[in-house]
Amino acid sequence: MKIKAAVAHRPNAPLSIEEVDLEGPKEGEVLVEIKATGVCHTDDYTLSGKDSEGIFPSILGHEGAGVVVDVGPGVKSVKKGDHVIPLYTPECRQCKFCLSRKTNLCQAIRATQGKGVMPDGTSRFKIGKEPVYHYMGTSTFANYTVLPEISVAKIREDAPFDKVCYIGCGVTTGLGAVIYTAKVQPGDNVVVFGLGGIGLNVIQGAKMAGANMIVGVDLNPARKEMGEKFGMTHFVNPSEVQGDLVPYLVNLTDGGADYSFECVGSVSVMRQALECCHKGWGVSVIIGVAAAGQEIATRPFQLVTGRVWKGSAFGGARGRTDVPKIVDWYMDKKINIDDLITYVLPIDKINESFDLMHSGKSIRTVVTF
Amino acid sequence: MKIKAAVAHRPNAPLSIEEVDLEGPKEGEVLVEIKATGVCHTDDYTLSGKDSEGIFPSILGHEGAGVVVDVGPGVKSVKKGDHVIPLYTPECRQCKFCLSRKTNLCQAIRATQGKGVMPDGTSRFKIGKEPVYHYMGTSTFANYTVLPEISVAKIREDAPFDKVCYIGCGVTTGLGAVIYTAKVQPGDNVVVFGLGGIGLNVIQGAKMAGANMIVGVDLNPARKEMGEKFGMTHFVNPSEVQGDLVPYLVNLTDGGADYSFECVGSVSVMRQALECCHKGWGVSVIIGVAAAGQEIATRPFQLVTGRVWKGSAFGGARGRTDVPKIVDWYMDKKINIDDLITYVLPIDKINESFDLMHSGKSIRTVVTF
Repeated sequence: MKIKAAVAHRPNAPLSIEEVDLEGPKEGEVLVEIKATGVCHTDDYTLSGKDSEGIFPSILGHEGAGVVVDVGPGVKSVKKGDHVIPLYTPECRQCKFCLSRKTNLCQAIRATQGKGVMPDGTSRFKIGKEPVYHYMGTSTFANYTVLPEISVAKIREDAPFDKVCYIGCGVTTGLGAVIYTAKVQPGDNVVVFGLGGIGLNVIQGAKMAGANMIVGVDLNPARKEMGEKFGMTHFVNPSEVQGDLVPYLVNLTDGGADYSFECVGSVSVMRQALECCHKGWGVSVIIGVAAAGQEIATRPFQLVTGRVWKGSAFGGARGRTDVPKIVDWYMDKKINIDDLITYVLPIDKINESFDLMHSGKSIRTVVTF
Repeated sequence: MKIKAAVAHRPNAPLSIEEVDLEGPKEGEVLVEIKATGVCHTDDYTLSGKDSEGIFPSILGHEGAGVVVDVGPGVKSVKKGDHVIPLYTPECRQCKFCLSRKTNLCQAIRATQGKGVMPDGTSRFKIGKEPVYHYMGTSTFANYTVLPEISVAKIREDAPFDKVCYIGCGVTTGLGAVIYTAKVQPGDNVVVFGLGGIGLNVIQGAKMAGANMIVGVDLNPARKEMGEKFGMTHFVNPSEVQGDLVPYLVNLTDGGADYSFECVGSVSVMRQALECCHKGWGVSVIIGVAAAGQEIATRPFQLVTGRVWKGSAFGGARGRTDVPKIVDWYMDKKINIDDLITYVLPIDKINESFDLMHSGKSIRTVVTF
């Protein structure tokens, strides 16, 4: 079938809106009509060419929502008409990782997903005779896409696509890091570095979990008001702190953060996030993606005296199990997504969403078809 | 009173056996007759002058066992005649740290202990008119020492001093890191770096916890037999591994260690210990003490994909609560201490214990009075 997609032909060039051939779903695959998709920093990172695993030409996008329009042989968990959110972290419920009960990082299709193809080793997208590659197993910058059955979460039908698409990445990544990875408890003091789309979701996750202090750290003063709307109790602008930031934060939180979250992707901020944790038990969670080759460092004494350094991918959430719950939380008004979606653009204007991201004007831009 | 002690007058010089004046216990303090003491790498580290917090002249030693011979006013938890193990990590049961239920790092007397004095700010030791400082709040290289009440663990009276003194540091540090810090469970695969006095106790802790594979890593081939005696299932000598050690260990453990333990004190080994952990959930515990100023480093991707980096001090054990239990385990033959104590020397020969340590001939030397 002929579909309309924003194609990334090469690094560091605008996406090109064009007609692409899409082959129907094979065994264990589903065809989804994408109704809306967020544009995330990870798409921008890959498009910039800095992602050493980026493949071109490809169809980017990994934060979508849509409707199943066809299923391949053997598909049992979803059917035509189901509303779904594509999952770049699948959930097969059968591999060593899914069965460990300790991680959400299902590895069932990791090798092929990383190569931009479906589990059978081929792409469903073509322009003329040339293959166009999948991206993160999702490729949501297209009005139709094909995904493995284990890479879609079935959600309720009354959820608006142009809001819950954001649960496909940003909301779950931030909220989940608090709830599934860190397991913040009532009364805990939390410090959040970087109040973008992820950090603000960390804040509302911390509020939901009953945190005591929720300290937001950002160089952009405009993020203070936004943070407070989502539950931030204290705002710290590092450029306004006299002296070192770490002791300032330790003092502010009466000994250090019970949990800190790095949502910037800077290795020096990751170190600050660890070192502002409370001696004896503070846990720092890395969410941000650092540039290729960069390394985190600290003195081992920081760990021996009880701080814990860990990370979170897709918020530690199991896609098919947890994403539908987060959609419920949104529908029940337990979380706020509407205020995070600062712009909605038609697919033809998708390149503008990257400009809005770079300028810092948008928290999240959603593209509709 | 006049006591006999091994005095460290200055860095990097032999200890001097001499008569020292010891003042009796003040309020909240106890006087203990030390019957036996282990000689640990930490004593050696401070004596070498590399410990930036080392204070001289002082009486080193932190791995002792003895009998309470006098108590100061207000002491309620121990009495004359009680058998005790001195604790360099006290347990006040009242501070924020003790009450957190998340750490063993009681901070009640940390400031004064770090300065080589009792909680009232003075030392009990003197030579002539000059104060001699306490060390780690314990100073067990003396036949009598004074300690805060919260720094002694009461133990059963049938436990032999020249064995259970080792529970004052090495045994608890290794065993506790497995049981209290990592909480290894039956079936877990464990990798231990460094098979000295700590590493061998990690091995027997892992065996006690029901671990599946217990992989020991050491450059000294003589440690293979010793490791196996304590429950090691696989020995890896890095000098005999073709190619990189990390992928070798990941392959050996079918995806990586569920838990790894660094018992060397090398920041490059700490990195290997983290990176040999299983994707998704592997936890690496730093036990070794790195040289001052050295830093650990890794790519943040290691953490974002589910590995956890933490540390352990005194095995995460609460001294007054857990040390008596570990003494019971020894008396019930659940753990082996006898084979770890490779030499017993009288206090007059204490300097030989450092030579035995440096040569790698001893696991642990115990000094008796």
